Amino acid sequence: MTASTQYLSNLAKKASPWILEEGAYRPVVISSRIRLARNLAGHLFCQRAKSDELDLISQEITKAATAIPAFESAAVIKMEGATLIERTLLLERHLISQEHAKGGRSRTVIIGEGEISGIMINEEDHLRLQVIQPGLSLQDAWSQINEIDDSLDDHLNYAFMPDFGFLTACLTNTGTGIRASVMMHLPGLVITGGISYIIQKIRQAGLTVRGIYGEHSEATGDLYQISNQITLGQTEEKLVATVDSYVRQIMGRELNARKQLYTDSRIKAEDVVYRAYGLLSQARMIDSNESLLYLSHLRLGAYYGWFDFTPAKVDELMMLVQPAHLQKAVGQDLDEVQRDTLRADLIRKTLGCT
Amino acid sequence: MTASTQYLSNLAKKASPWILEEGAYRPVVISSRIRLARNLAGHLFCQRAKSDELDLISQEITKAATAIPAFESAAVIKMEGATLIERTLLLERHLISQEHAKGGRSRTVIIGEGEISGIMINEEDHLRLQVIQPGLSLQDAWSQINEIDDSLDDHLNYAFMPDFGFLTACLTNTGTGIRASVMMHLPGLVITGGISYIIQKIRQAGLTVRGIYGEHSEATGDLYQISNQITLGQTEEKLVATVDSYVRQIMGRELNARKQLYTDSRIKAEDVVYRAYGLLSQARMIDSNESLLYLSHLRLGAYYGWFDFTPAKVDELMMLVQPAHLQKAVGQDLDEVQRDTLRADLIRKTLGCT
Repeated sequence: MTASTQYLSNLAKKASPWILEEGAYRPVVISSRIRLARNLAGHLFCQRAKSDELDLISQEITKAATAIPAFESAAVIKMEGATLIERTLLLERHLISQEHAKGGRSRTVIIGEGEISGIMINEEDHLRLQVIQPGLSLQDAWSQINEIDDSLDDHLNYAFMPDFGFLTACLTNTGTGIRASVMMHLPGLVITGGISYIIQKIRQAGLTVRGIYGEHSEATGDLYQISNQITLGQTEEKLVATVDSYVRQIMGRELNARKQLYTDSRIKAEDVVYRAYGLLSQARMIDSNESLLYLSHLRLGAYYGWFDFTPAKVDELMMLVQPAHLQKAVGQDLDEVQRDTLRADLIRKTLGCT
Repeated sequence: MTASTQYLSNLAKKASPWILEEGAYRPVVISSRIRLARNLAGHLFCQRAKSDELDLISQEITKAATAIPAFESAAVIKMEGATLIERTLLLERHLISQEHAKGGRSRTVIIGEGEISGIMINEEDHLRLQVIQPGLSLQDAWSQINEIDDSLDDHLNYAFMPDFGFLTACLTNTGTGIRASVMMHLPGLVITGGISYIIQKIRQAGLTVRGIYGEHSEATGDLYQISNQITLGQTEEKLVATVDSYVRQIMGRELNARKQLYTDSRIKAEDVVYRAYGLLSQARMIDSNESLLYLSHLRLGAYYGWFDFTPAKVDELMMLVQPAHLQKAVGQDLDEVQRDTLRADLIRKTLGCT
């Protein structure tokens, strides 16, 4: 067993440490994430570069990253050496993107202590740095990532032009190269039917709304990722503040919806939550999407204080029931029925039901 | 409160007494029922008769019926004096048909002690006599109904022609005027997917398959009513024996399907049953169809011995959760949300969950 196989096996058995940490507005905001897209001067963009050059890029960035404090005890995992399940595991933990999980092309991920900071190498850009924090903490994430970015800049020669800012493979990232995104849990707006209007408004404001696994993914488990679209023409601070401000507005509406459900449609709220609890505590097989749907309702019940666990505890379960997590945790490939059975067992056990 | 209002209120609070009685093959066969269609000589058929004549028919039959031992302590309920909820209550207990539940036209129902025997007056025919028994007991039901029919014949002048047998309003009933029907619970065949083939075969054999509420109703709760189509050219004994024989074949297939589920797809069987249990024991609102679906799965679990209650106990609940039962039991009209809430409460309470 290689070091990274061992590292990934350990990952699969527990949720990311930050999941169980406190955070501002945790009942509505799961996490805040900022990523910066950077490329190295003197190299072709990933799409054009041949494998030797990609290899060189990977080496250069890995060397620079592991030289700075943020990544001194980091795990370095090459996609080429990782199995599909391992790559999917990293995707399920939001440490890499769907694109990166395809593997190949000298793609690498560097994961800092506690999975707070990470670097994808040779995804769309040479380097994509991210910092993730529990709850609504974009400002904090920005300070952290800005510091790491400065340190990296000391060791690398970023492609940068004063007129454009940071150069990126895709024009939409040019400028600051920043994407600030917040993962929100919006069951109140989904149940009361207000969600479509909100999504429309967020999009009109120039923000992006995505599902749990980023680009092109659906909003399973009432989880919505809100992020900025533009990266050019504004400072990072301004862009982060804009996302933060919209997230606070959506949060206000979600809290209102939850309150409305609680006071005006109490039986409906209880019915949705307790049905989810009944199902999760009794099902013998459950697929990924169905479990996320019911865990979402359970999380709402935890917010209302109807159970003896917190919403964060449900977040932990949401991470662990994902297909690659289940398989990597038991150390073997499972077919669908085996996965669905194991998932149901894990949920029942966690809820204290046999 | 009139005597029949009081009688119906009492009915609504408990299932029909025979529901909790023993019976042959109860886990698969809920009940066996035989009805005889009869008309009085010297009167127009119901469809052609004017209201004075229908009234006369009703009086004649009521007088004759209450004069014989089977109906000496019977309840006599006129549809014209009954509310929609009361008529629906009688339909839900299989004491009257959907047609009869429409009310009006001097329609009356006479209900013998314990709801075993009954007479619908002025439905399609002047008189429809029925006897119902728990489990598979068509022979027994036939003996009982034959005796009652003979007694009634002493007091009434049945329309009968030696060449045709008993004359009836609809030609399909002419001859013996008999319909032998058996209510079967077939979750095994539904879950394993064998049900469509069985239904096709039963129909090819000249038998009729209907849902829980008779003609034109759907098979909710995996409940199927199997009955004879033809009534002419064969003795009653032969017709009853034919239905009985087909029911035994279907029963064999259902028991095989249940065994197959239990041995080959145990996890699937447990999943279906325990999900139903989880939902029924936690839902705060549940509509009639959904509750029948899950109660059907719960009944299968009771058959497997996974719960501390019998299939018959589930039959009792299936009867009591019906809309008119719920409303008549609390003595007031309820809107849909109120009914669904009351139904969920009743189910949780019966299952010992709060």
